[in-house]
Amino acid sequence: MTNLKNDLILKALKGETVSRPPVWMMRQAGRYLPDYIKLREKYDFFTRVQTPELACEITLQPVDQVGVDAAILFSDILVIPQAMGLTVLLEEGKGPMLPDVIKTKADIDALNSTEVENSLSYVYKALGLIKSELNGRVPLIGFAGAPWTLLCYMVEGKGSKTFDKAKQFCFTEPELAHSLLQKITDITILYLKAQVAAGADLVQVFDSWSGMLSPADFKLFAEPYLIQISDAVCGDAPVILFPKGSWYALPDLSKSSAAGIGIDWSITPALARSMTNNSITLQGNFDPSKLLAPIPQIKKEVKEMIDAFGVNRYIANLGHGIMPNVPVDHARAFVDAVKEYQG
Amino acid sequence: MTNLKNDLILKALKGETVSRPPVWMMRQAGRYLPDYIKLREKYDFFTRVQTPELACEITLQPVDQVGVDAAILFSDILVIPQAMGLTVLLEEGKGPMLPDVIKTKADIDALNSTEVENSLSYVYKALGLIKSELNGRVPLIGFAGAPWTLLCYMVEGKGSKTFDKAKQFCFTEPELAHSLLQKITDITILYLKAQVAAGADLVQVFDSWSGMLSPADFKLFAEPYLIQISDAVCGDAPVILFPKGSWYALPDLSKSSAAGIGIDWSITPALARSMTNNSITLQGNFDPSKLLAPIPQIKKEVKEMIDAFGVNRYIANLGHGIMPNVPVDHARAFVDAVKEYQG
Repeated sequence: MTNLKNDLILKALKGETVSRPPVWMMRQAGRYLPDYIKLREKYDFFTRVQTPELACEITLQPVDQVGVDAAILFSDILVIPQAMGLTVLLEEGKGPMLPDVIKTKADIDALNSTEVENSLSYVYKALGLIKSELNGRVPLIGFAGAPWTLLCYMVEGKGSKTFDKAKQFCFTEPELAHSLLQKITDITILYLKAQVAAGADLVQVFDSWSGMLSPADFKLFAEPYLIQISDAVCGDAPVILFPKGSWYALPDLSKSSAAGIGIDWSITPALARSMTNNSITLQGNFDPSKLLAPIPQIKKEVKEMIDAFGVNRYIANLGHGIMPNVPVDHARAFVDAVKEYQG
Repeated sequence: MTNLKNDLILKALKGETVSRPPVWMMRQAGRYLPDYIKLREKYDFFTRVQTPELACEITLQPVDQVGVDAAILFSDILVIPQAMGLTVLLEEGKGPMLPDVIKTKADIDALNSTEVENSLSYVYKALGLIKSELNGRVPLIGFAGAPWTLLCYMVEGKGSKTFDKAKQFCFTEPELAHSLLQKITDITILYLKAQVAAGADLVQVFDSWSGMLSPADFKLFAEPYLIQISDAVCGDAPVILFPKGSWYALPDLSKSSAAGIGIDWSITPALARSMTNNSITLQGNFDPSKLLAPIPQIKKEVKEMIDAFGVNRYIANLGHGIMPNVPVDHARAFVDAVKEYQG
């Protein structure tokens, strides 16, 4: 194993004392970076994702150019539905499309649940290459989509404001829904363990649409699968769970095997600390739109955010992905403000 | 004034004891009703809104056909930007479009802030007609969009997942943003008072996009204007504030002059009661997607919802608008379950 020159994020996840919080940004390898745009003009999305050299180059861009404290694999949560046998279309400027939506038991039975070794080998190759190129500069984050969020896409067939088809499926066919969620969970556990074996130092599970669920339905359709994944993977590497919009789940998840919980900007740091009894590392929660504010204001509000969370058991991040229209120097100001933090 | 045969919602807002909670549904006069669809095929959106006889007919449909305990004026929150002088396009199946977006002080200065008597007279005529047709059967709800939500549309020019242009405007030009918010607030107060004078028994203010804001930004850009409106109108009629997604504002708003607060399904009834210190009437919060569940499940979950909120100081409703794909008998099952409630 490479010795890490910067292991701030791993220390934060262990609850060790740090001189300042680590910082990275969700979607940091993405469309706000001009060098990413250049690659996007030459290669389509799945070429970028499935070519280890391209995925590696894109993953390293924000490390080199913005100075974040962790790299996160350039990939997409929908590689799992794809590996399970579904067609996934990702055209630029449009949301994802999955033309073969899941409706019946036969549809679920037809999905692969274990074939991650071959069909996702490009991910593991990319991770190995990134790990080698990083040469210990910063830790490498692997990731997957949460089962509920993947079910949303697999049943709805596309993005949605309400995911009401996906919810209708869960409410009217709960047994089928649970069998699909379990199948996604099983393959995700294998996938994340393989990512760690290939070089990921920690992993994050993105439950991007969990906030669509009421607290009661989150406990039925999202939480058990997040916990299963965390329990299965936490022995291999620290796990961060990010159930976007599900602030109400903080007490439960803070008692889980996860090392960290991601939160969005709809909850104050103080309340998030109180709901988690100060017992777990929190990650977040800068409003991504605020990166469009003037740089002095970004720096001021980052300082206030760290003051509120505290330096330890904290990973500075946005509350959701960075937006394409953010100027690079604003992204850098966010990162710099964390690095310059004086309590 | 007509004597109301059913004044359950007014009793609930006063905190008086009721035999069962009142029930209505946001967007109850809308696309899930076949008779509404028939009118939609004959008349475009603004013809339906601006013709008092059509607005009246549509407003009464859910009272007659679904049995709700209150009528709500058929209209749209964007009639205010329209009355202020902006072009508003509402084509079927598309979101709203406002081609003349607000960017500068001159744009704001050019907006009307008081001309509600003439340009919105069709609303007051509709309210009078509805009031007369209702003949005291149930109370009539007037409404307006909240200043923050209207600013979102006026600056962004259309719907958005993030309203980042609107937020950028607030973050980079806060003085301009506040002058726009104040101008919207002033006209909204006149508008709601005129609605009450024309027959509305209570009014609701819809802050549909307040949940996009962090708690700190909500306090800057949304809350002061909601409070101003409530303070100015509460002497005329009870005011319900519905800041969707802003569960964090419950403690503050429960101490305001509002008679009720609407909540969505992301918060449990128990926590909402606790955050408001049991001191205010709450309205909500059934997940609209759950109306796609089988009828016995709808009825079971409605009963659980009322058990959790309690019968008094409570208005049964959805947590957001009813969706077009809900079968009418499912909507009716929701209403019936409230009416059949036995504690």
